[in-house]
Amino acid sequence: MSLRFYYSPLSCSLATHIVLEHTGADYEAHRLNLRENDQNTPDYLAINPKGRVPALVTDRGILTETPALLLYLAQTYPDAKLAPLDDPFALAQMQSINSWFCSTVHVHHAHASRGRRWSDDLEAQQSMKAKVAQNMTDCAELIEREILRGPWVMGEQFTVADPYLFTMTSWMKGDGVDMTRFPRLSDHSKRMLDIPAVKKIAPLHGI
Amino acid sequence: MSLRFYYSPLSCSLATHIVLEHTGADYEAHRLNLRENDQNTPDYLAINPKGRVPALVTDRGILTETPALLLYLAQTYPDAKLAPLDDPFALAQMQSINSWFCSTVHVHHAHASRGRRWSDDLEAQQSMKAKVAQNMTDCAELIEREILRGPWVMGEQFTVADPYLFTMTSWMKGDGVDMTRFPRLSDHSKRMLDIPAVKKIAPLHGI
Repeated sequence: MSLRFYYSPLSCSLATHIVLEHTGADYEAHRLNLRENDQNTPDYLAINPKGRVPALVTDRGILTETPALLLYLAQTYPDAKLAPLDDPFALAQMQSINSWFCSTVHVHHAHASRGRRWSDDLEAQQSMKAKVAQNMTDCAELIEREILRGPWVMGEQFTVADPYLFTMTSWMKGDGVDMTRFPRLSDHSKRMLDIPAVKKIAPLHGI
Repeated sequence: MSLRFYYSPLSCSLATHIVLEHTGADYEAHRLNLRENDQNTPDYLAINPKGRVPALVTDRGILTETPALLLYLAQTYPDAKLAPLDDPFALAQMQSINSWFCSTVHVHHAHASRGRRWSDDLEAQQSMKAKVAQNMTDCAELIEREILRGPWVMGEQFTVADPYLFTMTSWMKGDGVDMTRFPRLSDHSKRMLDIPAVKKIAPLHGI
C-alpha cells in the first residue's frame, strides 16, 4: 500500500510521521505551511474538511486525527509491535493515554497560539496564553508521576504512545514548563532521539 | 467480570454508560455530583487522578477517557458488534470520529461552563462562552454534511460512535445551536431514543 501523508512542523503530526518512518511504510510526505494557510486551500480541504494536520491518504480513503492514525498504523504494520494488540485491557490503557494527549494536553498547548479558536477578543486570547505554562506543567506532573512507566510509556514495550508523548514533550519548554523538574520525561525524550526514525523525522518538524 | 462505573449527569460519561447497559455488562454505576466537587475528593482522585468522569474500575485496573472506554467495551463484548473490529481501516474511521469528538467538539462545549480551565479572567471566560454557539454549530454542520452516514454514524452498523454522537448532540441545543438546521443529526438522536438501553440511561443523565 502506498500512503500520502500531510504534516506541518511543530504540530501533532510529528507523532504519526515518526511511526510511518519507523514501520518502514511506503509513504510520501507533504509539508503544509500553516502560516501560509496551506491547510485552508480548496485542494487541502478536499482531503481534510477540518483544515488540520495530520491526514493520511490510503488506498481505501483518508484518515485523520492522531490517535486514530497511530492505532491504524500499529494494526497495519503488526510486525513493528507498536501496540498491545492482543490484550484489550492494555490496549485501552494505551488508548486512554493517547486520548488524553489529544483532548487535554494538546488543547492546553493550543491555547498559547490558537486562542482565536475559542474567543474573538484579543485580551481574552492573551489571558488564555498566560495560563498555558501552568496547565502544561500540571500535565507534565501527571505524566512524570502516573503515566510514564519507563523506559517507555507502557513500560518495556515501545508503542505509538511514545512518539505521541515525545510530541507533547517537545512543546513543553516553549510553553514555559521548567523541564528540570521532570527528569523522567526529559530522559524519555533523550531516549526517543536515539531511535533512527526520530533522528530522521524530528528535524523536519523543527526539533 | 464485574465493573464499577463512575459518571455524572450532562457529562460525556453518558456515551460509555449507554454502551455498558447495551452490552449487558455486569456493572455497578456510581453517580458523582460535580457541583459538590465529588470528583476532587481523595477517594475519587485515587480512582482517577485527573478528577474527571468517566472512570471504569475493572478486575485488572482502572480505565479512563471516553474513546478508550468505548473501544475497550466493543472489544470485550464482541457479540454486541459495536465496532468494525476485523477491519483496521473502518475501525480507524470510527476512532477518527471518536477522537474528534473528544479533542474538538467536547472541548468547544467545555468553553461554555469550564472556561476557568483556560483563563483565570472572568471577562475572558465570558468571551469564550460567547463563541460556543458558533463553534458547536460549525461542528454540527460538519457532522451533518460529512460524518454521519446514516442511519448510524458508520452507516448500517450501530457502533460505539453512536452513543458518543448522541452525547455531543445532547449538548448542542443548550449551547445555542439551532437544531432545526440539522435534520439528519436530530433524526439520529430520535433513533437513539428508541433503543432500550438509551431509554433507561438517558434520564439518569438529565436527558
